[in-house]
Amino acid sequence: MHTISELQQLIENAVSKVEYPAHPSRLYEPISYIMKLGGKRIRPALLILSTELFNTDLLKEAIEAALAIETFHNFTLIHDDIMDNAPLRRGQDTVHIKWGVNNAILSGDVMMVEANKHLTKLPVEVLKDALACFNLTAQGVCEGQQLDMEFEQRKDVTIPEYLNMIRLKTAVLVGGAMKLGAIVAGADAEDADLLYKFGENFGIAFQLQDDILDVYGDPLKFGKQVGGDIISNKQTFMLLKLKEIAVAADLTALEELSLQSDYPSKIRSITDLYNQYDIRNIAASEMQKSLDIAFEALARVNVDTARKAELTALAKLLMNREH
Amino acid sequence: MHTISELQQLIENAVSKVEYPAHPSRLYEPISYIMKLGGKRIRPALLILSTELFNTDLLKEAIEAALAIETFHNFTLIHDDIMDNAPLRRGQDTVHIKWGVNNAILSGDVMMVEANKHLTKLPVEVLKDALACFNLTAQGVCEGQQLDMEFEQRKDVTIPEYLNMIRLKTAVLVGGAMKLGAIVAGADAEDADLLYKFGENFGIAFQLQDDILDVYGDPLKFGKQVGGDIISNKQTFMLLKLKEIAVAADLTALEELSLQSDYPSKIRSITDLYNQYDIRNIAASEMQKSLDIAFEALARVNVDTARKAELTALAKLLMNREH
Repeated sequence: MHTISELQQLIENAVSKVEYPAHPSRLYEPISYIMKLGGKRIRPALLILSTELFNTDLLKEAIEAALAIETFHNFTLIHDDIMDNAPLRRGQDTVHIKWGVNNAILSGDVMMVEANKHLTKLPVEVLKDALACFNLTAQGVCEGQQLDMEFEQRKDVTIPEYLNMIRLKTAVLVGGAMKLGAIVAGADAEDADLLYKFGENFGIAFQLQDDILDVYGDPLKFGKQVGGDIISNKQTFMLLKLKEIAVAADLTALEELSLQSDYPSKIRSITDLYNQYDIRNIAASEMQKSLDIAFEALARVNVDTARKAELTALAKLLMNREH
Repeated sequence: MHTISELQQLIENAVSKVEYPAHPSRLYEPISYIMKLGGKRIRPALLILSTELFNTDLLKEAIEAALAIETFHNFTLIHDDIMDNAPLRRGQDTVHIKWGVNNAILSGDVMMVEANKHLTKLPVEVLKDALACFNLTAQGVCEGQQLDMEFEQRKDVTIPEYLNMIRLKTAVLVGGAMKLGAIVAGADAEDADLLYKFGENFGIAFQLQDDILDVYGDPLKFGKQVGGDIISNKQTFMLLKLKEIAVAADLTALEELSLQSDYPSKIRSITDLYNQYDIRNIAASEMQKSLDIAFEALARVNVDTARKAELTALAKLLMNREH
């Protein structure tokens, strides 16, 4: 069983060794570009750890599945960045800024094919289950992105709707990666589903933590701009909860603040409102609820507790991040 | 073995019976919309005929593979229409006009997943080969679209480059559909590859015929605007051949004509140049070359000639079209 840092090394090696065709270069260069921009490689690491829970002799297979998930994830980043009109990804130009929108659409499309090519290398005994898991996961992610876009146009998004959106957009892929890891190992369906449940709920918790860190993160450690969600009036858990419980006068103030162009002042004022209504703790307790469901599911996975140590350690490391 | 009109009925039925999730409706409505816009359903019909060359008891399986190919094809239409900024598809609004670009990107993405879901229903014995064939095909189509976009920016495209581009953008999918049909039937690799060769070369011939019909088609029967390629200065086989053999004075005239905004006059003048250099016959003979390779490959497929009758009939019908 690999440690987390060994895994990250393995994944970086595997990513750097994937060869794409040389021509047409403008189709394939964006793939290498985004795949090598880095990121935390959380999904592939969780996938490989899920395989190794059951069988440590399937590293090659687990890595192919991990590359499928990581390639799919990066494909969604390219297309999401077009839809969100985002200029930067991990501090670098987004693909559509560097190569143009049309090229970014098409390179994304061919990445979906590349993801499926990795999957197709899996042993035939697990192939059908692996594909079914991957397809369901990919479909959920698309639905999540669709809801995210629609919510930007709506003023009446509820907290259950928001939680369902982040479940689809973010958490399903974490759950799907872990279930895929279990499928690669030939785990039984119940254990694979428990790992899905762990991943999905862990993914929700991770996103809620992201919402919290956007407001309360250490600017030196948080990967994105602290207050970015506030500046863009993003309907996060924090904002939706505040709107749910704030008194009318504060709602009016919030409405006015949403138009404010002095961003440091906007961030300060809205953070004050969050503090006043204890939103940080409410969000943290919502996050804890998902974490509890996640770890309860992990506890029920039918392997020795000792084998779960690396998985638990990675999950705890991720939840203690300040970035 | 089904006749061509039975096949078309089967395919329309199968397309209309596919159920997509109801929500988010804006994600899935465009899929039903484009899938039901019609079209000639050439690829799925050729796929099913390819299966039935070898085995007539696999209709259900052949239809799943045919739906995968038709769904993939329509996904590429949605994304191509965005890239080409096309307002109309089969006489109706394109998806990005009706639902917006972001929605069109995302509905296209989820169609790729739907295509893979159809494939995943194939029997496990043929699944790995079917996926490999599908992935290679899908990759080729993306490469073809990339080259097509790049050629629009270039003035030095050669005829071999053009033929390679239409091979990838159009013909690979015809070949891939037919090979997939053979794989579904459990045909041996040599026969599957011969059907690929038939389809690929037939596809090239079909596209060359399209280039010819754009100039010489009957306006009442040709599905698109006759002269559409001329108006948009599209670098078709016709134009590239003319540029290759025309004398300097005619090249200068052509250059000036490319800027002309009186379209009927532009069409007349450029058609005159085509006539003068016998471009129609040159293109027809290039087309015939591909057809000969195609039918030679079909002749070598190891089944009774009588079984090939429907396939031959469909191919001849398609090549005698005026639309």
